[in-house]
Amino acid sequence: MNDGGVAMRTGGETGLEVRQRIRRGEHRAPTAGLAPGYVQANLAILPSEYATEFLRFCQLNPKPCPLLAASEPGDPRLPALGADLDIRTDLPRYRIWRDGVLAEEVDDIRAHWRDDLVAFLLGCSFSFEDALLEDGIPLRHIANGTNVPMYRTSIQTAPAGRFHGPLVVSMRPLKPADAIRAVQITSRFPAVHGAPVHIGQPEGIGIANLMKPDYGDPVAVEADELPVFWACGVTPQSVIAAVKPSYCITHAPGFMLVTDLRNSRMAVL
Amino acid sequence: MNDGGVAMRTGGETGLEVRQRIRRGEHRAPTAGLAPGYVQANLAILPSEYATEFLRFCQLNPKPCPLLAASEPGDPRLPALGADLDIRTDLPRYRIWRDGVLAEEVDDIRAHWRDDLVAFLLGCSFSFEDALLEDGIPLRHIANGTNVPMYRTSIQTAPAGRFHGPLVVSMRPLKPADAIRAVQITSRFPAVHGAPVHIGQPEGIGIANLMKPDYGDPVAVEADELPVFWACGVTPQSVIAAVKPSYCITHAPGFMLVTDLRNSRMAVL
Repeated sequence: MNDGGVAMRTGGETGLEVRQRIRRGEHRAPTAGLAPGYVQANLAILPSEYATEFLRFCQLNPKPCPLLAASEPGDPRLPALGADLDIRTDLPRYRIWRDGVLAEEVDDIRAHWRDDLVAFLLGCSFSFEDALLEDGIPLRHIANGTNVPMYRTSIQTAPAGRFHGPLVVSMRPLKPADAIRAVQITSRFPAVHGAPVHIGQPEGIGIANLMKPDYGDPVAVEADELPVFWACGVTPQSVIAAVKPSYCITHAPGFMLVTDLRNSRMAVL
Repeated sequence: MNDGGVAMRTGGETGLEVRQRIRRGEHRAPTAGLAPGYVQANLAILPSEYATEFLRFCQLNPKPCPLLAASEPGDPRLPALGADLDIRTDLPRYRIWRDGVLAEEVDDIRAHWRDDLVAFLLGCSFSFEDALLEDGIPLRHIANGTNVPMYRTSIQTAPAGRFHGPLVVSMRPLKPADAIRAVQITSRFPAVHGAPVHIGQPEGIGIANLMKPDYGDPVAVEADELPVFWACGVTPQSVIAAVKPSYCITHAPGFMLVTDLRNSRMAVL
């Protein structure tokens, strides 16, 4: 572990140090809490025949699919996201999908890499949650040590080619004044899902029962709280699963790419 | 009426033109809708022995009391708010208060002016409503042609000397996505009440019945809407009424000062 200047300033490892530990096989656990202050990203790797359609899908749906970077076909580097970054070795766990079916989980995809693959990295709610906690807004799923609850909604994404499907949202219960503050804070972070898409009234977006999320774990919504809903990075995964591409690689849930970008630099203002 | 360049650009009269018509006695009606795009302001005139306390009260409570300008004692001009502005003649109707009791309504206060009076001008929700309507967010009280509903809340203002009392809020029913957008838009306008103070759950701020406002007219809140609450410029009037100063002059409700400032210039970003 490097205790030098940059690491000291963030109170822990840098993104680069985390990736190097992962590449050496020294970290095989989820990445939550690693490299505090650094942006973590969702990964989807698709054959280039899907790349243009998926790029258009992200462009049309920036709230659920905030694209941070896309690789050159066949090139495992992503210099915009990190120095010495190799997308084949730098995440602690990957999922290999064939025809939309999960084929295996692996901790290195060098043997699965192909010259026609394009890696897409999408912003993740860890970044805006950091900003909310930093502001003193409590987040119950984090206090509980559980996954954020996520729901498929009646809101449809804007389709692009073969990619289409419902918007998936994450939900955080907040007191009304904190909900207003959370709108202000997350509005500053369009590259990591941005402002909420809905507030209160789960039935208004097709959610029948808040205590039965489609992904993640339920959290209580107290009488003096409102459920606040953000577009979720599970949306592209759910859409890709519906498209059933011949071949696809994603991160395993919670095992993200840790980048060299700072969360604070994601703020537009 | 002046149809010159400036007036044409805003689709109507300028603030100066409206004040001059009022001074000539040619307009004695409420000011809503006059001089589109120009800031209108609430007026409170107090003897200078109250001035320091009231300034501190405004400073401590910027959301209900966004102070745009205060005059020099005894000086009826407010050059920061308008050219050739005379606070004694340029509003269409005033209220004279003695020991907290409404004594009379007049359309000119030159005979009531004193050398120890200080005029305070406070931002008004007309400015942020302009920005909401401009963005396509419907406001029901405007569609209905009624006054916005206002409520005394269980939230206390921060006291300063003799000035203290409950926060008064205005309420606008909005669909959830519009409520989120309205938080974003009004956050840009801290000088005219800024972001909402509460959303949903009227009982959380001591409002028992939304259909029985303490001031203004009720509006329906539909099943797919949330009540959204902003700090209201009636707060200082309510607080002044409770303090019962020996002498006080205010505008009559709806008969505001029209300034030379542009609403768009109230935006901080």
